[in-house]
Amino acid sequence: MNHFAIHSQLLADCHRLGQLGLCHVLLHKNASVPWFILVPEVESEDLLGLPREQRNAALAEAVLVARFITHDLGWAKINFAAIGNVVPQLHLHIVGRKPGDACWPAPVWGNLAGGSEYSAARVGEIADALRRRCSLQTL
Amino acid sequence: MNHFAIHSQLLADCHRLGQLGLCHVLLHKNASVPWFILVPEVESEDLLGLPREQRNAALAEAVLVARFITHDLGWAKINFAAIGNVVPQLHLHIVGRKPGDACWPAPVWGNLAGGSEYSAARVGEIADALRRRCSLQTL
Repeated sequence: MNHFAIHSQLLADCHRLGQLGLCHVLLHKNASVPWFILVPEVESEDLLGLPREQRNAALAEAVLVARFITHDLGWAKINFAAIGNVVPQLHLHIVGRKPGDACWPAPVWGNLAGGSEYSAARVGEIADALRRRCSLQTL
Repeated sequence: MNHFAIHSQLLADCHRLGQLGLCHVLLHKNASVPWFILVPEVESEDLLGLPREQRNAALAEAVLVARFITHDLGWAKINFAAIGNVVPQLHLHIVGRKPGDACWPAPVWGNLAGGSEYSAARVGEIADALRRRCSLQTL
């Protein structure tokens, strides 16, 4: 049995898309920029506190999502971060950025206005595309 | 000959401490929190765009600095990020955080007031400690 639970704040903020080998894949509900969040099924709360193999595996899955953002969604720049000051559960932000976007050049955290949302159909399209591109296991 | 040059904005914002195997090690001049910046000698501007071996090597060096922040400086939480919206040259932020610090729980970028500076002696002490702990090659 798998007792891993994604933090309730992440579930409130995001659409749940599916799972890669180590990480659950979430899409932030704010559709102003393509903002994905990976939640590795691990115990450490800090990316740099993970055992090397888990750290490298998490990064490799982040690379798959980053390539999807750049190659498929067409956002050339990636912001990557593991912060966790508010939600302690380890989660990795992978955010597509480009000059002129909704809060360029500021980081998204605390600077991105609301109001732009995905349709349910669009969330499904993104999950399907990740399933084809990255072998995402959809829910 | 080595033609690699650290971006002038990073040099203006930071004290230069030395070099690990792949990365130059900088200390942000704002002493409110222990804020280190690694600059890998690579061509990619995105961490997740690096070849796997370089990515894993950069992360391994980030781990050394994170352990120094937690074990030696006593800041339990690490914020890690590769953003680069303002300075395009790839650089990795490794920031010690704790509840009640100068901008907790906000991320440091854009939220950390100035006014707290290191003495030259303290910068030297930190560089010496990193040399002993992580085999930092000091300048």
